[in-house]
Amino acid sequence: MPVRPAATSAPGSTASLRTANQARVVNVLRGRAAELPADGTPVTQAELARLTGLAPATVSNIVRHLASAGLVDTEPGSGRRGTTVRLARSAGLVAGIDFGHRHVAVALGDLSGALVAEDRRRLHAEHAYDEGLEIADGMLTALLAEHGHGVPVRNIGLGLPAPISDDLVRSSAILPGWVGVNAREVTSGWFDRPVHTENDANLGALAEHRHGVARGHATSVFLKISSGVGAGLIVDNRLFRGADGTAGEIGHLTLDEQGPVCRCGSRGCLEAYASIGTVEAMLANQLPDAGIDRILAAARDGNVSAVRTLEDAGLHVGWGLAAVVNLLNPDLIVVGGEMARAGDLLLHSVRIGMRRHAVDAAASTPVVASELGERASLIGAVLLAADRTEIAVGP
Amino acid sequence: MPVRPAATSAPGSTASLRTANQARVVNVLRGRAAELPADGTPVTQAELARLTGLAPATVSNIVRHLASAGLVDTEPGSGRRGTTVRLARSAGLVAGIDFGHRHVAVALGDLSGALVAEDRRRLHAEHAYDEGLEIADGMLTALLAEHGHGVPVRNIGLGLPAPISDDLVRSSAILPGWVGVNAREVTSGWFDRPVHTENDANLGALAEHRHGVARGHATSVFLKISSGVGAGLIVDNRLFRGADGTAGEIGHLTLDEQGPVCRCGSRGCLEAYASIGTVEAMLANQLPDAGIDRILAAARDGNVSAVRTLEDAGLHVGWGLAAVVNLLNPDLIVVGGEMARAGDLLLHSVRIGMRRHAVDAAASTPVVASELGERASLIGAVLLAADRTEIAVGP
Repeated sequence: MPVRPAATSAPGSTASLRTANQARVVNVLRGRAAELPADGTPVTQAELARLTGLAPATVSNIVRHLASAGLVDTEPGSGRRGTTVRLARSAGLVAGIDFGHRHVAVALGDLSGALVAEDRRRLHAEHAYDEGLEIADGMLTALLAEHGHGVPVRNIGLGLPAPISDDLVRSSAILPGWVGVNAREVTSGWFDRPVHTENDANLGALAEHRHGVARGHATSVFLKISSGVGAGLIVDNRLFRGADGTAGEIGHLTLDEQGPVCRCGSRGCLEAYASIGTVEAMLANQLPDAGIDRILAAARDGNVSAVRTLEDAGLHVGWGLAAVVNLLNPDLIVVGGEMARAGDLLLHSVRIGMRRHAVDAAASTPVVASELGERASLIGAVLLAADRTEIAVGP
Repeated sequence: MPVRPAATSAPGSTASLRTANQARVVNVLRGRAAELPADGTPVTQAELARLTGLAPATVSNIVRHLASAGLVDTEPGSGRRGTTVRLARSAGLVAGIDFGHRHVAVALGDLSGALVAEDRRRLHAEHAYDEGLEIADGMLTALLAEHGHGVPVRNIGLGLPAPISDDLVRSSAILPGWVGVNAREVTSGWFDRPVHTENDANLGALAEHRHGVARGHATSVFLKISSGVGAGLIVDNRLFRGADGTAGEIGHLTLDEQGPVCRCGSRGCLEAYASIGTVEAMLANQLPDAGIDRILAAARDGNVSAVRTLEDAGLHVGWGLAAVVNLLNPDLIVVGGEMARAGDLLLHSVRIGMRRHAVDAAASTPVVASELGERASLIGAVLLAADRTEIAVGP
């Protein structure tokens, strides 16, 4: 007789109902429920019952079951606050790794996706993937030694500034040392545990949706403007990846088919008007060798070239976003990446550009700056790893 | 003690499980299950069990319960085929109404969304909304007299070529007599039963997804090119409407900000290069007063102006679709509306335009002609009405 694992009970059965109820409780504990405080305050059993819609007795059974398996910690209530429940630290840790054009960031998180510790280092832009992984590995080992307390890392989330489909890193001028690499296979082997790879803008969208300014918005767009320009889409409260995982490639919308040649080979792409590299290159004569921070400082001091260049970048970003709001009609647009440090110096013209090109019904979609800043993709990588970690006990 | 309606049993309870199981069976009978034959062949109880994942005894109980309420008809099996089940015609009818720039179509359908009878009439473009409704009402009455057999129409689906949000018909140069009308309120009053309004391209997307060429594709885009250019999006097997219901406004993507002034007030919109009106206007000197059918005939006969005009329209459509595939990464694009009659005369250059402007990863997204043709929106209106009709019995 074939052995049937407990998890695959027939749909509609009482066993599957029990599994589903346990998953509801775990999901609230993971911090996914929109009503949950974002600051990690543990919920009470009564709140768990309200948030899951389950009977208090059912919740109490499930919590006891999870606690006896060491997956949750409970703490007796004090005063008017009843027993609180949280995922146990000993249930496991996850790690997030975020590679950029010139940086790598590594973080440890708990199974709810909350950050435990993090580190960030500069990296040279032409690094080979294994060179990058060696540095990340060293950083992770150091974080674990200091903050891990012997708890194992169960899953790793890895963000890369490139389109990723079927785990393969597709064409990326931003990360040349990674192109064609099967990121999941190579990194899972390297770290000797499951690694889940994702485009960095997608991770930023996830992070802003769960813990940032897009919280509570069912459909939002996270626009990341750094060395490249990419977007992550949240549709009906979930990350939307498209058929092959490449959705959100806003950076290569053609704005002018006779425009400047883009590194992707096409012409007049948004990225060729609005990336950090483009802005730096446009100011090469006026502010030689200035990085984005010096350009932003100059603009704040009233340097006309710097102001105008940022404005023009913003108008083009707005044009690209008009395509997004016309097609997707999101309820919020979040602008992140290093360029978002420009704040209203950029966003003001982004809004003007969007209004100029969007249909009336969508032209007033709010455009706001990222709340999580440059850490958005790293936080998203930890959330991805936590999401992919199963937290369940059999009956 | 407050009375609690049976339908709102607590989530996770056995009663809600029963309700959910009944809904699964009903959903398969509605023809929503992807595995179901599209031709309306009734399913057997055994197939129902397989398609719902429920135990045969559970299915058999639910079917008995639905049959005793007159909602399904069963027929004893013959040979190797067991008892078959279908939604009872006497359970109710629905109607679909599709208004266009110059036509109105009306159809009767059963609760599975299958068409029972239909009619189509020409309409002058400047009709007031109540004039249009009077004609549609007359057509519906005639269809009911001939095909209704006294069964009541429970719900009506209504398609309009305009952005619709909060039931209000937003700016539409295509249907001037409807702008600002609260379509749901006005028409529900007129027909004295619930009317569900929806953008016509959205209805076309729904129809192609359920009964047309997009069947089995989780993420698809239906592009409607008629007097206007609009799109309907299927995301994760569901119609995606966006935050305010205006998603899919592809017709007003800015392709050239110095381009021709569009009727929307912006410049260089896709619609200003590719709608039927644009194509007719471009050929006003070469083929005076030719409608789209004469233009297509001329192109097939090798008329250089007609061929070139269609080609240019197609290249611009491809550019607009490149924005769609870059952002959404769908697995199929379906081109419908009257312009789709052009077939490869148009689609060949659409594909070239798309490849020219899309990122590599998405440039090869298949572009195919609509299978349901001009009836797509009407079929979608019937499906919408059927979907919104509750089919359930209390415990």
